[in-house]
Amino acid sequence: MSNTETYTVTGMTCGHCVASVTEEIQEIPGVENVEVALETGAVSVTSREPLDDTVIRSAVEEAGYQLT
Amino acid sequence: MSNTETYTVTGMTCGHCVASVTEEIQEIPGVENVEVALETGAVSVTSREPLDDTVIRSAVEEAGYQLT
Repeated sequence: MSNTETYTVTGMTCGHCVASVTEEIQEIPGVENVEVALETGAVSVTSREPLDDTVIRSAVEEAGYQLT
Repeated sequence: MSNTETYTVTGMTCGHCVASVTEEIQEIPGVENVEVALETGAVSVTSREPLDDTVIRSAVEEAGYQLT
């Protein structure tokens, strides 16, 4: 069974930004899938176990963006 | 002696876009330096010999952007 949680990320302006955020989040252990909607900033993360929000926040900030 | 010519590129929205355009133009033989101003889209290219505009246009389009 997997868990999917959707976050909102601000500051992404193009496909490169989407790729950066996706790559950072995919490096988190247990993450199975990441989907990003550039227009809305919605980032859906599917993982084997529920993830701590601080881990997602760190990954997003590492990529250079902000979690709302 | 070097030549510097400034072009205007549209569609760049972030630092990743700047990096993509810079990298593509730097691959053109004879190019010595590329400077990009994201806010204005101004791209200054310094080269040993004057370059054909079509070569610059192709590089910019290869990166996914447009020369005005």
